[in-house]
Amino acid sequence: MTIDYSIENVSVNKSFGGWHKQYNHHAKTLNCYMRFAIYLPPQASNGEKVPVLYWLSGLTCTDENFMQKSGVQRIAAELGIAIIAPDTSPRGGEVADDDSYDLGQGAGFYVNATQTPWSRHYQMYDYVVNELPQLIESTFPVSDKRAIAGHSMGGHGALTIAMLNPERYRSMSAFSPISNPINCPWGRKAFTAYLGKDQATWRNHDASELMRQAQQFVPARVDQGGADDFLVEQLKPETLAAAAKVSDYPLELHLHEGYDHSYYFIASFIEDHLRFHATHLKK
Amino acid sequence: MTIDYSIENVSVNKSFGGWHKQYNHHAKTLNCYMRFAIYLPPQASNGEKVPVLYWLSGLTCTDENFMQKSGVQRIAAELGIAIIAPDTSPRGGEVADDDSYDLGQGAGFYVNATQTPWSRHYQMYDYVVNELPQLIESTFPVSDKRAIAGHSMGGHGALTIAMLNPERYRSMSAFSPISNPINCPWGRKAFTAYLGKDQATWRNHDASELMRQAQQFVPARVDQGGADDFLVEQLKPETLAAAAKVSDYPLELHLHEGYDHSYYFIASFIEDHLRFHATHLKK
Repeated sequence: MTIDYSIENVSVNKSFGGWHKQYNHHAKTLNCYMRFAIYLPPQASNGEKVPVLYWLSGLTCTDENFMQKSGVQRIAAELGIAIIAPDTSPRGGEVADDDSYDLGQGAGFYVNATQTPWSRHYQMYDYVVNELPQLIESTFPVSDKRAIAGHSMGGHGALTIAMLNPERYRSMSAFSPISNPINCPWGRKAFTAYLGKDQATWRNHDASELMRQAQQFVPARVDQGGADDFLVEQLKPETLAAAAKVSDYPLELHLHEGYDHSYYFIASFIEDHLRFHATHLKK
Repeated sequence: MTIDYSIENVSVNKSFGGWHKQYNHHAKTLNCYMRFAIYLPPQASNGEKVPVLYWLSGLTCTDENFMQKSGVQRIAAELGIAIIAPDTSPRGGEVADDDSYDLGQGAGFYVNATQTPWSRHYQMYDYVVNELPQLIESTFPVSDKRAIAGHSMGGHGALTIAMLNPERYRSMSAFSPISNPINCPWGRKAFTAYLGKDQATWRNHDASELMRQAQQFVPARVDQGGADDFLVEQLKPETLAAAAKVSDYPLELHLHEGYDHSYYFIASFIEDHLRFHATHLKK
């Protein structure tokens, strides 16, 4: 099979004076073709290099959910921030998968897999930290000022990736993150499959562990709904809050009574996240 | 089969301080079970009776597309307006259907069908004009101040329904409406199937025909994207504009360069539509 290394535009929609676009490209780290979405605010059409917010989605999502359901474009257009939404795992017929929704395609957990059969393609950590930003910054009118955010599995991804690379991100935020994956069913299942049974390797991808031991800080905001069905068993924001106290981490944690795990929650508070990131991206 | 005439709540999401909910009920006019969505703004939880905007979606949509993708809740919460999104046709295994996307289920065109096999269930005009508002106004804390809006096929529905019932609606609006269905492929196909070959019966459901002959006026706003793939062959806003000139109809028509037929266009301008309706609903 001949690999096409070009980047291919597959959709364009004008949105709030800017442009939402989807692209396909061959990801070397993932060894497969990947689609991502970008929102370029109006300022990017005026020759300005705009800062970038990377958005990592949750289980079962693709690059489309956040762009279609969050309403982020309105605020990104006002603030002059580009938004990048990668897919949530490697994709394709040749890529290992699992019948369950919380492992395999749609469930990459933003780690580099070391175990068979996952390690051949599931290198989402390297893709999000290195390959995708290099592609974005060499292709689009964006600066190297980066922030990162995400939801649920993507909230776990955003917090861990930023804390492991504090020099690369100005700020980090999460909605309903899997805050302590080494102690919840979603995390334990995925980390066992992707990283193996040695739990020592898991701690490096656990937001609460990283926050407790942190010495360099990335300004952080987390929002959690009080009526979230996954709150107690899977998300555990109280563990993250306790970790922040230990290291005196600059974490704003907001609890919202009545809100659930859906995009209706994200849409209700995405403006607050964008304004939080803007204060750090505009410095 | 025993019919259950109760209204059944099937989902609840908190959104911008208000509540998005979906309900199932048996629609007598349609002779089948139907789902609709409602957004109740925060004001409705405070004992206030709020005005209502009915939203009619386009081909292939359900009650979900507008609620998930438009971002309407933010503005509805600010302005204190409830939003109702019905489905776009009768539904179910016993309901006549067609293999194409622009006829049958998902494509009811908001008319009362007179032709076999459609007439048994396809009575969307009566459902939207009478049965659904009666159910809404007897079930939820809403007033009898109504506005109506829609997209594409639903824009056709909103304009024709308001012009046929000017005493029932304070204002009407549409994104990318099928403005002259008797002269475009979508409309001619649907009207032939649902209303029969006698084109005299079609004129009563053509927004341009109704607007040209109007003597009672419902304040109207229409927005159309200039990069809409369906603009020339299917939508024909210029015919609506010409009709408005004949009758001196109070129509605001806004053309937006670069925007397409998608929800990215709707999301970009839904705030303008809500504020337009609010000026008439708050009188």
